[in-house]
Parts: sequence; C-alpha cells; structure tokens
Amino acid sequence: MAEYKAPLREMHFLLHEVFAADQLWARLPGLAGAVERETADAILEEMAKLAANTLDPLNRSGDEEGCHWVEGEVTTPAGMKEAYATYCEGGWGALLGNPEYGGMGMPKMLGAQVEEMINSASISFALYPMLTAGACLAIDTHASEALKQKYLPKMYEGTWAGVMDLTEPHAGTDLGMIRTKAEPQEDGSYRITGSKIFITGGDQDLSENIVHLVLAKLPDAPAGSRGISLFLVPKYLVNEDGSLGERNGVHCGSIEHKMGIKASATCAMNFDGAKGWLVGEVNKGLAAMFTMMNYERLGVGIQGLGASERSYQNAREYALERIQSRAPSGPQQPDKAADPIIVHPDVRRMLLTQKALIGAGRALSTYVAQWLDIAKFGEGEEKQHAEGMVALLTPVAKAFITDAGLECTVLGQQVFGGHGYIREWGQEQLVRDVRITQIYEGTNGIQALDLVGRKTVANGGAYFELFATDVQAFIDREGGREEMAEFVLPLSAGLQCLKEVTASLIARAKEDPNAPGAASVEYLHLFGYVAYAYMWARMAAKALPKAGEDDFYKGQVKTARFYFARLLPRTQSLAASVKAGSGTLMDIEAELF
Amino acid sequence: MAEYKAPLREMHFLLHEVFAADQLWARLPGLAGAVERETADAILEEMAKLAANTLDPLNRSGDEEGCHWVEGEVTTPAGMKEAYATYCEGGWGALLGNPEYGGMGMPKMLGAQVEEMINSASISFALYPMLTAGACLAIDTHASEALKQKYLPKMYEGTWAGVMDLTEPHAGTDLGMIRTKAEPQEDGSYRITGSKIFITGGDQDLSENIVHLVLAKLPDAPAGSRGISLFLVPKYLVNEDGSLGERNGVHCGSIEHKMGIKASATCAMNFDGAKGWLVGEVNKGLAAMFTMMNYERLGVGIQGLGASERSYQNAREYALERIQSRAPSGPQQPDKAADPIIVHPDVRRMLLTQKALIGAGRALSTYVAQWLDIAKFGEGEEKQHAEGMVALLTPVAKAFITDAGLECTVLGQQVFGGHGYIREWGQEQLVRDVRITQIYEGTNGIQALDLVGRKTVANGGAYFELFATDVQAFIDREGGREEMAEFVLPLSAGLQCLKEVTASLIARAKEDPNAPGAASVEYLHLFGYVAYAYMWARMAAKALPKAGEDDFYKGQVKTARFYFARLLPRTQSLAASVKAGSGTLMDIEAELF
Repeated sequence: MAEYKAPLREMHFLLHEVFAADQLWARLPGLAGAVERETADAILEEMAKLAANTLDPLNRSGDEEGCHWVEGEVTTPAGMKEAYATYCEGGWGALLGNPEYGGMGMPKMLGAQVEEMINSASISFALYPMLTAGACLAIDTHASEALKQKYLPKMYEGTWAGVMDLTEPHAGTDLGMIRTKAEPQEDGSYRITGSKIFITGGDQDLSENIVHLVLAKLPDAPAGSRGISLFLVPKYLVNEDGSLGERNGVHCGSIEHKMGIKASATCAMNFDGAKGWLVGEVNKGLAAMFTMMNYERLGVGIQGLGASERSYQNAREYALERIQSRAPSGPQQPDKAADPIIVHPDVRRMLLTQKALIGAGRALSTYVAQWLDIAKFGEGEEKQHAEGMVALLTPVAKAFITDAGLECTVLGQQVFGGHGYIREWGQEQLVRDVRITQIYEGTNGIQALDLVGRKTVANGGAYFELFATDVQAFIDREGGREEMAEFVLPLSAGLQCLKEVTASLIARAKEDPNAPGAASVEYLHLFGYVAYAYMWARMAAKALPKAGEDDFYKGQVKTARFYFARLLPRTQSLAASVKAGSGTLMDIEAELF
Repeated sequence: MAEYKAPLREMHFLLHEVFAADQLWARLPGLAGAVERETADAILEEMAKLAANTLDPLNRSGDEEGCHWVEGEVTTPAGMKEAYATYCEGGWGALLGNPEYGGMGMPKMLGAQVEEMINSASISFALYPMLTAGACLAIDTHASEALKQKYLPKMYEGTWAGVMDLTEPHAGTDLGMIRTKAEPQEDGSYRITGSKIFITGGDQDLSENIVHLVLAKLPDAPAGSRGISLFLVPKYLVNEDGSLGERNGVHCGSIEHKMGIKASATCAMNFDGAKGWLVGEVNKGLAAMFTMMNYERLGVGIQGLGASERSYQNAREYALERIQSRAPSGPQQPDKAADPIIVHPDVRRMLLTQKALIGAGRALSTYVAQWLDIAKFGEGEEKQHAEGMVALLTPVAKAFITDAGLECTVLGQQVFGGHGYIREWGQEQLVRDVRITQIYEGTNGIQALDLVGRKTVANGGAYFELFATDVQAFIDREGGREEMAEFVLPLSAGLQCLKEVTASLIARAKEDPNAPGAASVEYLHLFGYVAYAYMWARMAAKALPKAGEDDFYKGQVKTARFYFARLLPRTQSLAASVKAGSGTLMDIEAELF
C-alpha cells in the first residue's frame, strides 16, 4: 500500500488558479479578512500531515477491529480516541464554525480540500467530525441563542460530538412516516420517546458528550412530513455552568455489522422519555434539516472523492512497480524479466479513468463549495443566484462523485489483479467503504429524483438556466482561443445535448408523472459528465499556457484530453436512455418481475 | 432475505424452447441417448432442492465464520463438510465426467444450469467441485491412461478433490515467469519444488485427498511460456491398490484474508520436493491448461450469473414488501401508510436492469455451452465451427457476465437502501463474493485482450464472422415477422455497428500495436451488449406467440423491450470510446500519472 500523500499541488491549482479563491474571499462581505492564500496553504499543509501521519495508519486496523458494543456502550477501535484528541487539539472541529461561538469562520472551498484529505485517510474517522459539523450548522442556524451558547463552543472544540437521528426501521426515504414522539413539558423541554436506526456515531468513546439532533412528532402534529420537528437531545444533560449533569434517557441498543466503514459506529438508538429541546419551529423540522443537508451531501460526495484518490495512489504505485508481460510495442525495460504494467494500454485506461474522474470530482466539489460560500457570505442577488446553484448542483455532487467513487475504487482494485481482492493491500476496503456513500444521506436514486423533480421540473428549469448560462459564458470566453477548441467544441455539444434533454424532460413531465423518475438516474449521470467536461475545460484553460514548462500542467492537459476522448462519450448512451421514456418501465405488472 | 427459488421455468424455456436442446442432444454423435428432456428436467429439479435446502443456508454463516488455518491444515466453516458429502452422494461431481471412468457424460448445456443454481446458493461452496471438474477435464484429455484410471473415478466421486496451481507471487497474468521447478526422477516421476499463491481449495477438510495440477519448469526448459509443463501432485500419494499412502511434500503455508468468498480457502502452497507426474507433453503445460480454460471461464461467468439471480430474488421480494412514499401517479395502496417501492420508476429501472442482464446472461451461457457440447460431442466441420465459436465467445461470457454481475449485485443492494449495506440482509455479501469473478481465471482485462487479440485480430476476424453469420441468419429468418421488427431492427443495427468497429479495429491493429489493448474492454462490452440483444431477440421470438396467454412469456417479452429501450443504447458510447483509439492513453508519460 502506498503511503498517502495529499494532492496539495492539485488543490493549490484549483483554489488559486482555476477558481481564484483568494479574490473571492477578499471581496465576500461576510468573509473579508478571515482568510488569505498563505493561511489557506498553511492549513492545507497541516491537514496533509495529520491525514498522512495520524489518520491514515488507523484505517486498516480500524477496519479489522471494528467497533464494539458492550452493555449499551460503544468503544471505537484502538487508536481512534488518540487520533480524535489530536484532531480536536489542532482545532479542526472549529474550521468552518461561527466565530461568535468559537468557530474559525473559514470558507467551504478550503474546508472541501481539508475534508478530502481526512476522507482519503479514513472515511470511518471522518464521519465523526463531519456529523458534528453538520449538527453545529443546524444548531447555529435554527436553535435559540441559549442553546447555541450552551452547545456550540464545546462542539467546535470536539469535546462534545453531534449526531443526526432521522431514520426509523420503517421510515428511511419516507421520513413522513416516523413515529418518535415528543411531548411538551412544563419547563419548556420535551420528552422524546422512540427508536432510531442507522445513527452514525450514535454512541462512541471519543467525546465527553454526544448531542443528538432528533426528528420527532408532537402529539398533535399533522400527518406526514409537515408534522416533523427537530430536537436537541444530549447524552448527558448539561448544567447551568456548562458542566455535565445526569445521564439522559437515550441509549444505544446495538450496532450494525456492515460491509464497510467498520470503525464508524452505526447505532440503533432508543429514546426512552429523554429530555430534549426544540430546535427551530414546531413542525418545521425537515426544513431545519435541509439547512445542513447541502453541506452534508457535498461532504458525502467528497468522501467518494477521498476514497478514489487513495485508491488511485495505490494503483499508480503498483502499476509502476509490478512487472508482468511486455508492452505491445516491444520491451520497454529489456534488462528486466518483464515491463511494469503501466506500459499496457488497458492498465493506463484504468488509471486515467481514475485520474480523470478524480480531477473533475475535486474541481466540481470545489466549484459547489464556492457557491456555498457565496450563498453563506454573499449578499443580495449574488447570494440568491448562488443558492439556486447550490440547490441544483448538490444532488449532482453527492451522487455523481460517489458513483464515480465506486467506479474508481473498483478500477483501483482491478489494477492489482488478485492482490486487489486480498485485505492486506487495502484496495478492497476502499470499495467496501465507498459503497455506503451511494446509499446514505439520501440514496443516489433519491438525489437523482431531487435533481429532476424539485430542482428542475418544479421550477421549469430556472436553476438549470443558471448553470447553463455559467457554462455558456465560459464557452464564449474561451471559444476564441484556438488551442482551446479541442475542449470547447465538445463541451458546447455536451451542453447542447443536456439542454435539449432537460427541456424535453420538463415538457414530458407535464403529461407523464412517471417521466422524471424514469429518467432520473441517467439524467443525473448525463448532467455529471457534462459538468465534469466543464471542469476539465476550465482546468485545461489554465494549464495549457504552462504545459510546455511544467509536468504538472502537462499532466492536467493530457488527462483532460483523455476525458474528452474516452469518458465524455458516455453522454450519448445516457441521452438515449433518458429519451426512451417511462414506457418499458411502467408497462410491466409487479407480479411479472 | 428471500428464500432461494431456482429459476427452473427460465431454464426450461431456454433449454427446450429457445435452444431446442433435446434435438441437439439426440443427434450429436458423442452424446446420442445419454440424456433426454425428462432426465434433464429431473436433474434440474434435484439440484433446485439441493441448492435451496442444503447449500443456500450455509452461505451467510460461511461468510461470517470463514476458513481456518491451523498448523498447515485448513478447516472449512461449519456445515460445509456435511453439505459436500451430500453433494457427492448425489453423484453431482460425475455429472459431466467421462463415462469410461465413472462419469455421467452429460452435456454442458445442462451442466450450466446446474452450476448456476450451486453458485446462486454459494459461490464459495461451488468453487470446490468446480475446480475438481476442471482438473478432471485436464486429466481426462491429457494424462496417461494409468493416471486416468487411478485418479478420475475417485475425483468424479468427490472422494478426492482437484485443484489448479498456477499463480506465483511474481507471476500472475504472465505465467511465463513462474519459477517452480520439476526435476525428473529415475522412476519416471518428478520432484516439484516451489511456491504457489491464490490456490483455491489448495487445502480443505472436505475430501480425503487433493489432486494438484501444478505448472512447473524442467531444469532445461526454454524461457517464458514455452517452457511450462503440467504435473499431477497428490496431497497423499496413492498406492497401487488405490488406497492412500504417505503424505506428499505439498503443504498449505497460509490462507488469504479476502473481500469475499470467505468459505472458499485461498491457499499459499509450498511444494517441497513433492512427488508429481507429468500430464501431457513436456513444455506443453499451458496448452493442456487451455483445454479446461474454456469450461472454467464459462463457469466463472456463471458464478456472476448465479450471484446476480440471488440478489435479484432478494431485491424483488424487498421491493414488493417494503412500503415507502407514494407512486408518482398517486397512491396505489391507499389503505396502507405508503406504497410498496416497486411502484417507483427508478426502483423498477434497477430491478429490470437486473432481470434483463440475468435473462440474457443465462441465455448466453447456455448458448456458449451449446457450442462447447458441439465441439466435444460433434464431428467434422460442425465440430470445427463450434470450436471457433467457443474460442470467440468464452472471453465474452466470462468477462461480460461477471461485469454485469457486479452491476446486478450493486443494484440489488441499492434497492435495499441502508439495509443493503448491513450484513444480515445478505445483499452486500453477494457484491463482495461476485467481485472476485471479475478478477480470477484471467482478469476481465485479460479476457478482453484475448477477445480482441488472439480471437479476432490474429485471425483477421474469422471467428467473428462465424458469430456475425449466426446472428445474421436469425435476423434473416425472423425479419419477415412484423411483430418481431421491434427487436430485429435494433439488433440488426447493433450487429452492423459491431461489424464496423471490428473491421476498423483489425485494420488499425496493423499500424498501431497499442490499438487492440486500448480498445479491448470497451470492445468486449460492445460485443456483450450486442450478444445480449441477440439473446433477447431469440427469447422474444419464442415468447411473443404465447405472451397473450401466459404471464411468464409476457414477462419475457416486456423484459426484452426494456433491454432494447434502455440497455442496448449503451453500445453507442462504447463504440465512440473504441473509435477514440490509443492516442490519449499512450501519449502521457508514466511519471505524469
């Protein structure tokens, strides 16, 4: 297994050249002065060390050992506790937090790179702070000032962790069906009773307290998703002075045995008249959750990216070192018994597919993070515009980067041949770990429905227009550069295809209620490949002028060419499948399956 | 987890209607009288019971427990030994064996269906008898009469097992690099010394003896793959009277910890001056291995099929029972809190993709088995023709059915949402188990190179012509039926596309040695989708006339329609990628990866 080496060069390229982040950071009203290029680079460098030296070495042992559940208490695998302490001491939990309560107020564009490194090192580890950050965001945005002051500083420190309690055995995608009850008490608190499953980090031995954000229904709540409220339920009640008080009525009943992310405790939680406090308004719990959803979903996309990068680094090293057979054009290293397998076109296809999907995935997550930052720190029309972009692009980033994550980790395993199937090489763990990212935080099928339905058909394509306009502006800007034609022309054709498919889908949805669902996953993939083409074209635009003098830029340009020649054509089949409509899907009776 | 129910209806349809197997069986010179429809059906029914009642229940417990290695001895998980005994008592090990030595001499067309059921129940279990059958085939074809008489009857019984010892740590794909030595002894035997890895069933506690077929090199052997010979090395030497004698110098040094197939022992084997006997001619070991390779590789394809079918049965049951959200067109079961998820177009897309890939995969493996039977039991030109078809189609069946296997099992897991990631539902195990089928017995990348290089470019497309002619004959035959136009026209277009791509690839290979490798995997997939279209068109041709009266036929026709509308379009992108050539793959220097 290769030693993990954070792709800092790629990250600098994106932040400083492709997206000129420091210019954005300097001018955004809510961010001015908080971060400059030097600070950002120093932060990235620190995380690169932490990820490589502290987190990465725990990944395989954590997978082997897994979490333990004994009499309601969860312990994490050896080393996790120390690593979590180091993480918290470094102040990483506060990176994106609200400065009023002890956060550092950094932009998500920077946070996205930091998250990638943590996830490359260990998705299991990354989940604990990721959930805390999400909970902090929900509390910061919706909770009362008293709750914020009481909880946020400790959560930014990492002394207390945060988790989300949504799913119930009979209610996953369809949260309107949850049964957990919240009964109002005279002191203004609520008594929470019910069972939740699949609660990531629901219990653990890393932090002193665990703050649950729980979806529950008041006794008189309307049926369905309009009757859901959000509650803060700590594992230990917090005294007025901020010290920990008595144990609250929330307990971990068991942990799941899973395909992967075994060092992350996936808990069944029982709320037995636990004391909780309302976050936000009664019956508006789902909306409160949605605040953090965009961040969480991009974060899951970044998990797919992180695992892909780790797998790629291993596969690249193996392909350079493993000797087997001769190159088709004749021996490349005649002094050895065989050539390194990187001489073989098909091994190159696998590695370049990884490299191309990873490079574009990193760019797309940075691009979405940029819109999140503008939506958070910007004002007026610009803010509104960014909110539309975030709404549209979040499901694409979540689902497409994680679907690419499975493809990338499977390819990285395949490069190893039989050794890829053996645990000691680490490649098979990455496949198992990344597989959850396509499932949780809304399955990728649900992301696709969100993209097609709520984000596109429901507004007549208004958000889509924002994106298409952005891509078109780039095409218009770069169209005059002759050397950019190899990228601009196919990008333009891809955009045109996506526009047509989008328009026809919006039209068909009016007559056929099944049209959006029938097209959704292939439409999201079509969107994803065009978005990746846009990202590679933007990277090529910056890299081309320097490709003669520097290997890094040369590599970027050549990877872009591979993407356009070999991966972008996937849009053709996707468009054809989308156009096929819902007929053959809906025409078959359930009993004929 | 659904109870496994063997798809006997589908198998009968293929054998008796689509491929009219009994007519073939009746007329093949080497097979006449050995099997009729009634016998075949009875055999299928027996295996359906064995698979469901004896093998399937061991699959998850075998995965949880895994194999054990203690001081050189391997023990299999609880229950395997009893199941293996039941299997052997049923005479299943003799099914395809040579009647001269106790085999039943049944056709592979029947064997393929039997194998699918075993593999649906447990790939791990299936591997033990599968390797024995392969070893028997190699011995039957190449070994001396004395070796055959001594070993085959016990191996058909299953009392002794057979395994293949090919791979060494530094020599996987490139077997020319193996270092295991074979020194001739005065008594005509050989002293075998060396280390092998990834030996499936290299040691176990199921059979009384284990017969290793080992690739090794004589001291004066030519370098590379032309210096490889094949040896039979039993774990226990066999006395003249057939009883077991002393322990031979072959030992299991360790077993691998793997992603899946955990109940199958993957062994590192040490040969320490072990006594062995030559099988076939000196230095022609690879050719001897190739005899069984076509059977083994189709067998691995069938593993992918078996896992897909199991996953599909689970997913179908779950989709019919799990209620969550409402159908896009309005409530379908208004009396319930939500509709079963099978009402959702995207869930149907996942299930139908499974069903369509499984149906065509079963048909393709039966079709290839048909050619194997004609090659084995036929004569003259017909036999020669069949050998060409087998050579061409084997890599497609191995790689395409197993690649589809990963897609199918991942989809079957996705239908379950979060529950698909949890071990208890079994869906994640199928993903882990099936993943090996894309890797072993020659990775799917190697299969693709074999298809493009040795099987197509090397003979100027002669084998391909045989296949294209077969498809064209079907098109000509069915083209006149108006109701078949929806299948025949796109099949014809697909064939045309495949022909053009094949011709241009053969042409390009003359100028560019990297062209075949650069196109190989996408070319194999293109071939696979056209072959599946041919299979669905053949099934539709038989099902259409009865689709009005019978649900089974109706389901076949509707699945065929789905395949043509939603999956066949994948050929468009694949053709575009193949046409892109090797340029972008080879243009990037190794250090720029």
